[in-house]
Amino acid sequence: MSEFLKVAQAAKDAAQLLAPLPRGPKDRALRAIADALVARTAEIVAANAEDVAKAREAGTSEAMIDRLRLDAARVEKIAGAVREVADLPDPVGEVVRGSTLPNGLELRQLRVPLGVIGIIYEGRPNVTVDAAALCLKSGNAVLLRGSSSAYASNTVLVRVMQEALAETEVPAGAVQLVPGLTRDSVKELMRARGLVDVLIPRGGASLINSVVEESTVPVIETGVGTCHVYVDADADQDMALSILINAKAQRPSVCNAAETFLVHADIADEFVPKALAALKNAGVTVHGDPAIAAYSPDVVPATEDDFYAEYLSLDIAAAVVGSLDEAVAHIRRYGSAHTDAIITRSQPAARRFTALVDSAAVAVNASTRFTDGGEFGFGAEIGISTQKLHSRGPMGLPELTSTKWIYTGDGHIRT
Amino acid sequence: MSEFLKVAQAAKDAAQLLAPLPRGPKDRALRAIADALVARTAEIVAANAEDVAKAREAGTSEAMIDRLRLDAARVEKIAGAVREVADLPDPVGEVVRGSTLPNGLELRQLRVPLGVIGIIYEGRPNVTVDAAALCLKSGNAVLLRGSSSAYASNTVLVRVMQEALAETEVPAGAVQLVPGLTRDSVKELMRARGLVDVLIPRGGASLINSVVEESTVPVIETGVGTCHVYVDADADQDMALSILINAKAQRPSVCNAAETFLVHADIADEFVPKALAALKNAGVTVHGDPAIAAYSPDVVPATEDDFYAEYLSLDIAAAVVGSLDEAVAHIRRYGSAHTDAIITRSQPAARRFTALVDSAAVAVNASTRFTDGGEFGFGAEIGISTQKLHSRGPMGLPELTSTKWIYTGDGHIRT
Repeated sequence: MSEFLKVAQAAKDAAQLLAPLPRGPKDRALRAIADALVARTAEIVAANAEDVAKAREAGTSEAMIDRLRLDAARVEKIAGAVREVADLPDPVGEVVRGSTLPNGLELRQLRVPLGVIGIIYEGRPNVTVDAAALCLKSGNAVLLRGSSSAYASNTVLVRVMQEALAETEVPAGAVQLVPGLTRDSVKELMRARGLVDVLIPRGGASLINSVVEESTVPVIETGVGTCHVYVDADADQDMALSILINAKAQRPSVCNAAETFLVHADIADEFVPKALAALKNAGVTVHGDPAIAAYSPDVVPATEDDFYAEYLSLDIAAAVVGSLDEAVAHIRRYGSAHTDAIITRSQPAARRFTALVDSAAVAVNASTRFTDGGEFGFGAEIGISTQKLHSRGPMGLPELTSTKWIYTGDGHIRT
Repeated sequence: MSEFLKVAQAAKDAAQLLAPLPRGPKDRALRAIADALVARTAEIVAANAEDVAKAREAGTSEAMIDRLRLDAARVEKIAGAVREVADLPDPVGEVVRGSTLPNGLELRQLRVPLGVIGIIYEGRPNVTVDAAALCLKSGNAVLLRGSSSAYASNTVLVRVMQEALAETEVPAGAVQLVPGLTRDSVKELMRARGLVDVLIPRGGASLINSVVEESTVPVIETGVGTCHVYVDADADQDMALSILINAKAQRPSVCNAAETFLVHADIADEFVPKALAALKNAGVTVHGDPAIAAYSPDVVPATEDDFYAEYLSLDIAAAVVGSLDEAVAHIRRYGSAHTDAIITRSQPAARRFTALVDSAAVAVNASTRFTDGGEFGFGAEIGISTQKLHSRGPMGLPELTSTKWIYTGDGHIRT
């Protein structure tokens, strides 16, 4: 049995013990993890220093190194996030539907954990703890496969969590690091049907596509966002400018940032010069179609690829469209079905746009940046699903559960 | 472009027009289909006669030929089922959740169609129409890939549906038959990511496994049922006998029929002889472990494979277990997580069994045969999901939908 299979089997065994636990023991376990993280800060920071040193040797940018770095304050913050998860309601056991059937059978649909959740991620080491906390709270065991650049940090973080769990009613095996640094372990994880119930890749489009292509474990796609802001003929133009700048520049590296703006031809002459000036002022490079480029020599001519791009930087694609329906067609063609916004004072336009745009979220007169579990009031978020099955949009704790039907009779048989 | 891709693209184009339609036009289209099926009965029966003749030449059993055969009464019944789907409520547009966020953003989560649903099935030609009706009602286009033995029937049924739709507001392209009889078209369907939103295989374990292995389109597994009846030490034994016989023999060919029974050792001496007599009387062959076999020479010694088997026939596996937890372990190991029942008068035993058995449905003092969309009051059923993502258990119309978040502000930006 490979090292991976041992770890996956341990997670599955732990999942069976964890699933029926009520909220009390799960919350106590999460608080024990938070305490242990703080108590063992020195050990965590020391392991992290190894990762940082290796990254520096490898010539990693200072910005990336800063994302990787842990210090006492950051460990304290990670522990605080675990305590916040403990404070959230438990989704498990919720009666989703229920009725007494005409024959007297009592029928209930209960929320239950998924089982074992695999998470493949490229993010900062805090994701290791965040993801584990969300999975444990929702009654799931978790197999964590983080970035190889954070392997020393993740190894210690998982060890601290496991040792904290060993003192609680939650089995220590419920949190597992996928062993090894090679792609082989990722491949094993993707083929672990029967051991792993769902795989959540968190990262760029190439990671997500490779998981979707290769996995036999059911996948929830997350996080690729080619979000659009469409400025309608009837837009309040000051509002449109404010939303456009916010959606693009407030935090360009996240999936709900805007990557393209579309302007109705009727207001292009008035709006586009203002938009180009405001974007330039915010440090944004505009990659425009010929109609946009005609307004300023600063505009970089857009290629087809620009309209598909998830820049995650201070770049934005732009085009003039002849109608709302043309904007919708553009979004359907180039978008990633994450979040698309319309700015309009027209009720019929808002109604048509929200009906025809087939994305996880559609915003009316609001920035795309609000598509977020925290903003939606979920309290925590494991990622933003851009697929249609199971869960679409921000995923909180209930999205980490399945359901089970229970029916009770007094000797009921079918006739 | 292959014939398959043309058809899939046509379905996708139709799905975009169909998705925003409200209930009225969809119900009118379903009634037009029902009327057309009845009006064109002669044409349908003639095509079906070709399939029947071919099946007979190929030496197909009369029982199978009867499943394949259509006559005027059966066509009338198929049309009636379409009218029943028209009478069901429309899941699309339901507001699943909604709130006004602290910042004043108005947030709603709406039910929307999935898009294009692919269905691969081995069943009778009525499935062609049933599945199409459920998909249309829930706003989805459908790609149908039925059994090659029903190809002539399915071709005419789809043509009749398309020609009926052509006179309605629902685009005719929303119902498509996957062209050709070879496995190539199934392979194309399984790789049609981006054109097909979900694939639902309906059939035996080998079909479902091959789809799960090969598909890059998200799959909903349905219908494999290795269901258990566990007779607890505290069971009402008359009730247990009645439920056991019902679960096994009332309709052995369906996925919610029982395939194994487990008996607590404490009551084995009293219960097993009664059970063996009753099963023999119902024409059932028992494949038992040594403890069961000791009670009667009629018992066929069970192999490991018997406990995994989905017989779908008048056969049942049987074993004696030392405890409820041993029964649970057996079910976890050999079961398909479809439906498992406990017969007990003990409340703690019922509570423990329902908590620990991780199946789509758990029955207490009731036959496994009740796990069914019709019995649950769904009005219709596309299949029974045995997976944990998206939908688990009987799938009705809401299970053929996704959701979309819509948020409306008055210039909201994130700060």
